[in-house]
Amino acid sequence: MSQPATAITPTREQDFPEWYQQVVRASDMAENSEVRGCMVIKPWGYGLWENIQRQLDVKFKETGHVNAYFPLLIPLSYLEKEAQHAEGFATECAVVTHHRLEAQKQPDGTTKMIPTGELTEPYVIRPTSETIIGAAFARWVESYRDLPLLINQWANVMRWEMRPRLFLRTAEFLWQEGHTAHETSEEAMEEARTMHRVYADFLRNHLAIPVIPGEKTERERFPGAVNTFTVEAMVQDRKAIQAGTSHFLGQNFAKASGIQFLGRDNQREHAWTTSWGVSTRLIGTLIMAHGDDDGVIVPPRVAPHQIVILPVTPKPDTRQEVIDACDALAQTLRTQTFGGEPLRVHVDKRDLQGGAKNWEWVKKGVPLRLEMGPRDITSRSVAVCRRDLGAKSKEFVPKEDLLRNVTEILQEIQDNLLARATALRDAHSKKLESLDEFRAFFGTAGDESKEISGGFALMHWAGNSEDEERLAKEFKTTIRCVPHGDEYAEEGTCFLTGKPSGRRVIFAKSY
Amino acid sequence: MSQPATAITPTREQDFPEWYQQVVRASDMAENSEVRGCMVIKPWGYGLWENIQRQLDVKFKETGHVNAYFPLLIPLSYLEKEAQHAEGFATECAVVTHHRLEAQKQPDGTTKMIPTGELTEPYVIRPTSETIIGAAFARWVESYRDLPLLINQWANVMRWEMRPRLFLRTAEFLWQEGHTAHETSEEAMEEARTMHRVYADFLRNHLAIPVIPGEKTERERFPGAVNTFTVEAMVQDRKAIQAGTSHFLGQNFAKASGIQFLGRDNQREHAWTTSWGVSTRLIGTLIMAHGDDDGVIVPPRVAPHQIVILPVTPKPDTRQEVIDACDALAQTLRTQTFGGEPLRVHVDKRDLQGGAKNWEWVKKGVPLRLEMGPRDITSRSVAVCRRDLGAKSKEFVPKEDLLRNVTEILQEIQDNLLARATALRDAHSKKLESLDEFRAFFGTAGDESKEISGGFALMHWAGNSEDEERLAKEFKTTIRCVPHGDEYAEEGTCFLTGKPSGRRVIFAKSY
Repeated sequence: MSQPATAITPTREQDFPEWYQQVVRASDMAENSEVRGCMVIKPWGYGLWENIQRQLDVKFKETGHVNAYFPLLIPLSYLEKEAQHAEGFATECAVVTHHRLEAQKQPDGTTKMIPTGELTEPYVIRPTSETIIGAAFARWVESYRDLPLLINQWANVMRWEMRPRLFLRTAEFLWQEGHTAHETSEEAMEEARTMHRVYADFLRNHLAIPVIPGEKTERERFPGAVNTFTVEAMVQDRKAIQAGTSHFLGQNFAKASGIQFLGRDNQREHAWTTSWGVSTRLIGTLIMAHGDDDGVIVPPRVAPHQIVILPVTPKPDTRQEVIDACDALAQTLRTQTFGGEPLRVHVDKRDLQGGAKNWEWVKKGVPLRLEMGPRDITSRSVAVCRRDLGAKSKEFVPKEDLLRNVTEILQEIQDNLLARATALRDAHSKKLESLDEFRAFFGTAGDESKEISGGFALMHWAGNSEDEERLAKEFKTTIRCVPHGDEYAEEGTCFLTGKPSGRRVIFAKSY
Repeated sequence: MSQPATAITPTREQDFPEWYQQVVRASDMAENSEVRGCMVIKPWGYGLWENIQRQLDVKFKETGHVNAYFPLLIPLSYLEKEAQHAEGFATECAVVTHHRLEAQKQPDGTTKMIPTGELTEPYVIRPTSETIIGAAFARWVESYRDLPLLINQWANVMRWEMRPRLFLRTAEFLWQEGHTAHETSEEAMEEARTMHRVYADFLRNHLAIPVIPGEKTERERFPGAVNTFTVEAMVQDRKAIQAGTSHFLGQNFAKASGIQFLGRDNQREHAWTTSWGVSTRLIGTLIMAHGDDDGVIVPPRVAPHQIVILPVTPKPDTRQEVIDACDALAQTLRTQTFGGEPLRVHVDKRDLQGGAKNWEWVKKGVPLRLEMGPRDITSRSVAVCRRDLGAKSKEFVPKEDLLRNVTEILQEIQDNLLARATALRDAHSKKLESLDEFRAFFGTAGDESKEISGGFALMHWAGNSEDEERLAKEFKTTIRCVPHGDEYAEEGTCFLTGKPSGRRVIFAKSY
């Protein structure tokens, strides 16, 4: 079997955007569909999403939330209620205008479908559900005793994207959207901060992605929000990805939707609401954070299979014995747990060439591959291939050692991925002081779309939205967040305006 | 607290359709939304769906299926590919014609949304996904080695319903749709039969609903299917509900979508496909099968809370002690399992009147309510209220006995619900021989919509689709299925045509 030096062409260094397309294709996680901007999430990608979903759902329930489901369609008039929200989501909605089709038989025997039954008020497919869930909350809440309402929805949403990219930016995507209503501003703010922490922890401990928690500036806020908390990841081309957001909505949406309650003082007042969400974009973030030039690398906590066992069957007469031994090993492994869940082990018994099979799992990013052949059965050993150490990493270990250490090995892989992503981020996060340094950091020489440069620029800042706009136009950079950590608090001078600043913000190019 | 004789007015006997509306409202499972025909599934209803989903998903995976996700939107031209399918789904689709909104500021300061960006080819929101998944399968399958493809999707679908009814018939609903492709007709047929069995077992063992497995006649088949297997339940007004279907699609959809593979004989041929699904309709079926005049009764296997503990706190000074004892009891109960899952126990600590609280859980249908007050702590006893034995059933038992027997009690409730539903069905299933008997069985005296009459008529049948149509018009009855069981195989004479028949079929009115 001849393999190129790397399984993915081009490499990350050569052309990162094209590497991403190729690595998604090679991993068989998703593909473009014939519906503009809509993807098909294939079983390997969906299996990853199922794990993300299940593990996040546990955290949502631990923090007191329950799931519910609200209509896919939103009356057009609902979007008109909150003016900023309306403008923010105005340009990208799928609009339903008819509710009937008539099948017309054609002279050639084929059938043609004609839309009929025009709706008096069109609907949009939800781009987000603040307005429709707000209307439900307005029905449900009467007194302070009905609060807090702590609801989450797992759903599909649609935003018509002109430049779609698998997982990162698609017209339809899957997500969860939390929506909560509270009696006081303080309680709602605490909720928004709690979910912000849940996201940061999940990214770090489950996806092995170190994120910088912080707040958006006014320019970058969710349309209609008072405050948007964000977790920002750096991926391998040094760009930022907004991996999740949690919004404190003040009373804006409560006023737009009429969520009122009788308070403890017997006065009617508007509730304080939040919303928060992460989406299938997490999968794109994970691929860009951890993948190498041989394919995807999936962190063990969320891998659909954490371990794939590859039976090595050189001769027909020992084939069954090897397969039985692999099945037995899988059964034993499945009795162990990792991250509180039984180990997910798959035995690949397909009648394919061993090398082809092996490369398939390399490209899919299975954390641990185990090979076992007739000689290994005799010597009671297993070939252990750690994906994080490279496609060709292989070590023969006694089977007993493997069984004793397997969850430690998985944790090592998980830790190693986090350490590498942290090292990358730290290596490309720089405190800069002047516009010249800023220009040198983000300036590009050649084809900007392919070049890997820049990173997180930690800047003193005291500018306004117009200043941000100017920098965005010139450098394609935005303020990713005003980070929360103490290490960002220091006195200095805004690099653009020269005004005093008490905290550095993070500028970066982003997805 | 004054309560009427029953919590739900009207009773089932008085007006079954209205009882259903009231019981759904009283259980707080779902409500109508402002979007025509679309429901909001509230946390108690969605919790039930989550359990159904998780437990079915295990069965799908055990039978070799994996989950994936396909686009919500389907190009209009796709629906034109399979002619029968096109006609079957033609009348009830939501059509997307525009992909942009423009926010127009009005002179009065408000914003108005105007659809723009007309699509050259409109899309429909999926009413079912055979066509779009077929297109994906056509891309994925090249040789017999790529088969079988065993895929399931959990998704929302839309069929514009003119007479919506919560859970039973809504414009948007949640479901799963299995789609598989096979090398041979036999293998595809076996798959369709396997999933048919999975559904029958799930209904019986998880939802406590005895169903009659059988096949649809040509008139009642899924549009485009060669054979439709169905599981038919009888609910308390003696009508039938089609609770799940599994379709053998032959090569019809493979030909329409171009799913071809290179066979073992090196010839290209079309794959054989199946599809199968159940939906949130299961929740409506469950409510109509088990509810009583005090509310819903949820079978323990799928109940969001199987046990609710109600602290009885007559005096402030013992309140904390009682709550602590209830929490401790809940913790102990949660270490036990039922149906392979940890017991789902909730302690209701809300500061509400005990009677109001109790009735809320009665109406929601929690299988087991436990009350514990200061005196019970002293006497080490618990008041045990079994929902299946009526709203007022209460028995004081030693706490140790409860802890020892709790899973047996839950199983008894589960068995009792199944036994009652089976008894009802058997009591109203009749072998009839003549049209006169048929008329007497299904004829109604008064307001047909409210009257409870009829049931399953087991009829010898040798008619055709036109004959079925005639009976449907006159009696509002359809052939629910040609049942599979040996007990239906006997020689006889068709009650309408007088022709010989080797098997009885089941006629009923239905939802």
